[in-house]
Amino acid sequence: MKYLLVLLFAGLTSSAQIQKEQLNLMPWPQSVVINDGNFTLTKNFKVNITGNPNPRIFGGVTRFLRRLDGRTGMFFSQGFITKLNEVPAAELQINCTKSGKIALYEDESYHLDVKQNKITINATSDLGALHGLETLLQLLQNNNTSFYFPNSQISDLPRFTWRGLMIDASRHFQPVDVIKRNIDGLAAMKMNVFHWHLVDDQGWRIEMKKHPKLIEVASDGLYYTQEEIKNIVKYADERGILIVPEIDVPGHGSSILTAYPEIGSKVITLTGGTSEKNIQGTAIATYGIERNAGIFSPTLDPSNPKTYQILSELFDEVCPLFPGAYFHIGGDENEGKDWDANPKIQEFKKKHNLKTNHELQTYFTMQLAPMLKKHGKQLMGWEEILTKDLSKEAIVHSWRGANEGMAAGQSLVDAVKKGYKTVLSNGYYIDLMYPVESHYLNDPMPKGAVLTAEEKARILGGEATMWTELASETTIDSRVWPRTAAIAERLWSAEDITDVSNMRKRLDVVSFRLEELGLTHIRNKAVILRNIANNQDISLLNEFSNVCEPLKGYTRNKGGTEYQMYSPLTLFADACTPDAKDALTFNEAVTQYVANKTPENKAKVTSFLTKWISVNKGLNELSANAPLVQSFLPLSKKLSDASEQVLLVLDNKSTLKSEDLKKLIEDCNTKEYADVELAVYAGLKKLI
Amino acid sequence: MKYLLVLLFAGLTSSAQIQKEQLNLMPWPQSVVINDGNFTLTKNFKVNITGNPNPRIFGGVTRFLRRLDGRTGMFFSQGFITKLNEVPAAELQINCTKSGKIALYEDESYHLDVKQNKITINATSDLGALHGLETLLQLLQNNNTSFYFPNSQISDLPRFTWRGLMIDASRHFQPVDVIKRNIDGLAAMKMNVFHWHLVDDQGWRIEMKKHPKLIEVASDGLYYTQEEIKNIVKYADERGILIVPEIDVPGHGSSILTAYPEIGSKVITLTGGTSEKNIQGTAIATYGIERNAGIFSPTLDPSNPKTYQILSELFDEVCPLFPGAYFHIGGDENEGKDWDANPKIQEFKKKHNLKTNHELQTYFTMQLAPMLKKHGKQLMGWEEILTKDLSKEAIVHSWRGANEGMAAGQSLVDAVKKGYKTVLSNGYYIDLMYPVESHYLNDPMPKGAVLTAEEKARILGGEATMWTELASETTIDSRVWPRTAAIAERLWSAEDITDVSNMRKRLDVVSFRLEELGLTHIRNKAVILRNIANNQDISLLNEFSNVCEPLKGYTRNKGGTEYQMYSPLTLFADACTPDAKDALTFNEAVTQYVANKTPENKAKVTSFLTKWISVNKGLNELSANAPLVQSFLPLSKKLSDASEQVLLVLDNKSTLKSEDLKKLIEDCNTKEYADVELAVYAGLKKLI
Repeated sequence: MKYLLVLLFAGLTSSAQIQKEQLNLMPWPQSVVINDGNFTLTKNFKVNITGNPNPRIFGGVTRFLRRLDGRTGMFFSQGFITKLNEVPAAELQINCTKSGKIALYEDESYHLDVKQNKITINATSDLGALHGLETLLQLLQNNNTSFYFPNSQISDLPRFTWRGLMIDASRHFQPVDVIKRNIDGLAAMKMNVFHWHLVDDQGWRIEMKKHPKLIEVASDGLYYTQEEIKNIVKYADERGILIVPEIDVPGHGSSILTAYPEIGSKVITLTGGTSEKNIQGTAIATYGIERNAGIFSPTLDPSNPKTYQILSELFDEVCPLFPGAYFHIGGDENEGKDWDANPKIQEFKKKHNLKTNHELQTYFTMQLAPMLKKHGKQLMGWEEILTKDLSKEAIVHSWRGANEGMAAGQSLVDAVKKGYKTVLSNGYYIDLMYPVESHYLNDPMPKGAVLTAEEKARILGGEATMWTELASETTIDSRVWPRTAAIAERLWSAEDITDVSNMRKRLDVVSFRLEELGLTHIRNKAVILRNIANNQDISLLNEFSNVCEPLKGYTRNKGGTEYQMYSPLTLFADACTPDAKDALTFNEAVTQYVANKTPENKAKVTSFLTKWISVNKGLNELSANAPLVQSFLPLSKKLSDASEQVLLVLDNKSTLKSEDLKKLIEDCNTKEYADVELAVYAGLKKLI
Repeated sequence: MKYLLVLLFAGLTSSAQIQKEQLNLMPWPQSVVINDGNFTLTKNFKVNITGNPNPRIFGGVTRFLRRLDGRTGMFFSQGFITKLNEVPAAELQINCTKSGKIALYEDESYHLDVKQNKITINATSDLGALHGLETLLQLLQNNNTSFYFPNSQISDLPRFTWRGLMIDASRHFQPVDVIKRNIDGLAAMKMNVFHWHLVDDQGWRIEMKKHPKLIEVASDGLYYTQEEIKNIVKYADERGILIVPEIDVPGHGSSILTAYPEIGSKVITLTGGTSEKNIQGTAIATYGIERNAGIFSPTLDPSNPKTYQILSELFDEVCPLFPGAYFHIGGDENEGKDWDANPKIQEFKKKHNLKTNHELQTYFTMQLAPMLKKHGKQLMGWEEILTKDLSKEAIVHSWRGANEGMAAGQSLVDAVKKGYKTVLSNGYYIDLMYPVESHYLNDPMPKGAVLTAEEKARILGGEATMWTELASETTIDSRVWPRTAAIAERLWSAEDITDVSNMRKRLDVVSFRLEELGLTHIRNKAVILRNIANNQDISLLNEFSNVCEPLKGYTRNKGGTEYQMYSPLTLFADACTPDAKDALTFNEAVTQYVANKTPENKAKVTSFLTKWISVNKGLNELSANAPLVQSFLPLSKKLSDASEQVLLVLDNKSTLKSEDLKKLIEDCNTKEYADVELAVYAGLKKLI
């Protein structure tokens, strides 16, 4: 407590006027005006709430106070806030006109006004006020001894109403605390939808009381109890987040069919003397939980009334857990292999005049719509559900692109032109380890297409998708954050906020601040590196990880069979992330040097090269007692070898033939080691 | 996968024979024999289970496999183990005679036999087998390319049957994931009791369906649902851990009395014309959740039948959640202030011939015994419950010592001599930030006292106690671990295993390995330091934290009022831990140098001194943009000033007067800054 006095007095000194460009706000607000002067924080800082907000505001303000106290060490005296108008004279006044509903199209706007002695947040609903508090936290500045908010006026509201993150809890189960801290991350980034992918080939993750077999045989004991789900729904509600659950059908059906093989589509060909045609048709295949990654054939039988009976019962139990208005039924990647091979299903198609498997799937989908409607839910599905007979109430989730042999975002344009509402995920596949820039510049509003105002209005927003073939509870945060914050800005901020380098600068600070929510995207890197280093010093490993990135796209897990769902995700690639920190700085230094060969610019480049040579030496020493280091030593050597030669080139001392030099650099473009690639290859190439 | 081939071939190379002293086993087994040769791990490693174990073995073996795979990156093909005798030819064979019961006195022994091509674990029960698997994990060795277990025979069983950790979830609520990961830590250290302190002045933490007021008004919304409790009990059972719940009565009653003031002991003196003596006696005081730390007067009224009615109803709801045979009713620190001031209670004492408040408390305690017995529970309480009329079935929890003006462990001797079973916690108060050595050398078996074999048998074991006045969910792991592992060894291993420096060497490795269980004791330090550094580089801060320790005993939170339960625990003292890493090394270097003034020994010392001078410079630079650094800059300066002069002294170049030099060193013995002290003071002092 003794040092508080220091802070209190120091708080009275003046601070240099801050410029708008220095602020690290994200998503960037619609309007920011900075005025002269500051509001300086003291121990006596208090908050008061007025109006008619939803009670979620109390917890929200209490959490705000604790986070501000944690950052500043102020020892605020205000504890838990539980009532309206508790401290009428408080420095921070929050007023909300009405209780916010957790739904689309809700008014999320807020006005934040910071003056010398008073801060006000005015919002229509508590949802807007919560956003205002996040902005205020991001406004926090400091000099050497005190913390303050710059006097300012901020008016803000989102560009899109659907700003989501999907987490796949099937392929790698993600425990309750992972979900909760990521919901906190969403709220901090003013996102409002958490799409919970709960069922896939690799496991059913919802406790079912009337169908206990699903968790008994198809979950490996890894599932959310109904109480945990309700608890998470409440947690999300308190943070202004809508939860959209997903049960993926009719494809991705391995886990459902492990419990209920009788509603599967697979035909068993009976062999031997007793086989008869009519027996073939009714024989039941068995299924197992899938351990690999990929697209698999287990698919529900759309011709079997029992399929709809079971699904209806499942929805009857699952829907009431989720008060939100949307239910995602998946519908993706059904290749129809088992349908084609099943004579009963072929007969059914003929009888119902369904020409293609797509039409059959639409028939299936449309059976589900009333089951969901009964519970007040609108159906949502991946873009494959979009066929001519689909109800206009369904929401189309656009996801396919070049990887799937489609034009990126084409389904989004198709959908809105046909009168469907849509959400974009193509371009937001954060599990694929692409750089943040690619997601940031991916706008839900298609650039090429000519759309009417009505059609544009059907584009609800976008959703980052975190599939978990290669993400465990230890690594998932580092795959989600900080890149999802940049997607949040794309979905919230004005269309013309697209300066990548400015975004990167702000993202660095935002990423740091996300730690206070318990997110592990920064801290867990050291955990993985310590394991690799076998408890030796990790600083050199860390240096090397700062120039390596996990393989991108679907290249790390070839054929989906290199990694089973229980394979170790404790390897070097799991410690590395996209946007490798030093790679960015190095590549920029190279660009500067190539443009202007000053000694200073040269020194910046050579300091990296000499570092990498010594990192390689160090890793070799480390490997004497760390077998896991062996896998990337050849890569480190390639970087070291190239660096040595490039240093000579820069001093005009290289004696190597041009083609040998080229080959040394090209060797750095390998993807053969430890599932990572060197992110400095492009920079190195420019130097020769 | 590509690097697996490297490992597979490398695995065939031979490894140097390991010595027993090189093993990092903890707790050290009763018998260890190392033989020639090794069992080298390959991708094909598999486990088989036979006998009649409890099904908890399946999850235990599956977790074992995943941890081993995570350490080695082997990509084992065996997934989830769910059946007996699944792989009869597996390299690791586990046999258990019977299903282990989660109770005291259960057979926890195991025999582990590692041979060139075969490993066997034989145990009476699965509990022993789980211990054997932990030992096997600790046996893991490696050379530069492969992992192996040294051929060996280990026979092992615990010295004490009660090896516990208590976590206080009242003062700072500790979420489910904190409890779970600490239970994993206990299991890894072969501990078997988790004592869950669920109720205290600062909050009631159990969802109550028949008495919802307790969570509505006395929990701040921070509590465990009954399902969460059941889920944790199951989690603990699967790991061989008995849970002992605690509801602390009749003192520490603020939270209970916030909900039910009518059963409190406090007398309200009504003032004004209408006050009458008989009204005074029945007036009800109001209570509130306590925000400070300390001993408070709110106490249940032992003369009020309603007290017993409510307690009986509470036990009826709470007992069934915990299948274990023990229930802790607290009973500590009741100062009787409100009892003395309450005429009705004084009358009650006279009527029942209870001479002292202690006798009155025993009367109270003995009313609870049948309430618990009804649910098959034995009563346990802190040592204050020990008075002449206490039932011999009660277990006495010995905790007081010098801090409380008592002889350390005296109550333990008293208890066993009077025929009570006891558990020792005095000397195991890990929240007080004492060095690991002090806990490690504290044996439950008292050295001075002469005890019969029967009396000795009543000493069940010991329990580390983690009170949370100053521990949040972010910092608690670093207060519990790794020191609790040393306590685990005291309680498991032979009495003569007391070599502190050998323990420290092993503890370092054990601490590192505990990370794989999700424990955050290492990783969260950087989180706190990043916040202090305001997102600047933390390496110098880290260096300084390696010579600082949080203030010990009860000195950090003076009067219990400096820190409220919602004050920030994000400060420098929260990043620091006992047994400061560099302090130990420095003090050893000094001892060596003083004994033998070689240039090498001198260099070891001076490298620290010069480092601290530059750390101080760096911290000053850091502080320009990090207000939280200010609080410990004066301390860093003192260390730097002393280091500068000591460097001169070592070179015989000091021109300072002896008393000025002494003062510089003594200045390093301050406790005035940032709630930490310099752990290198003793070493510095020896150098002048």
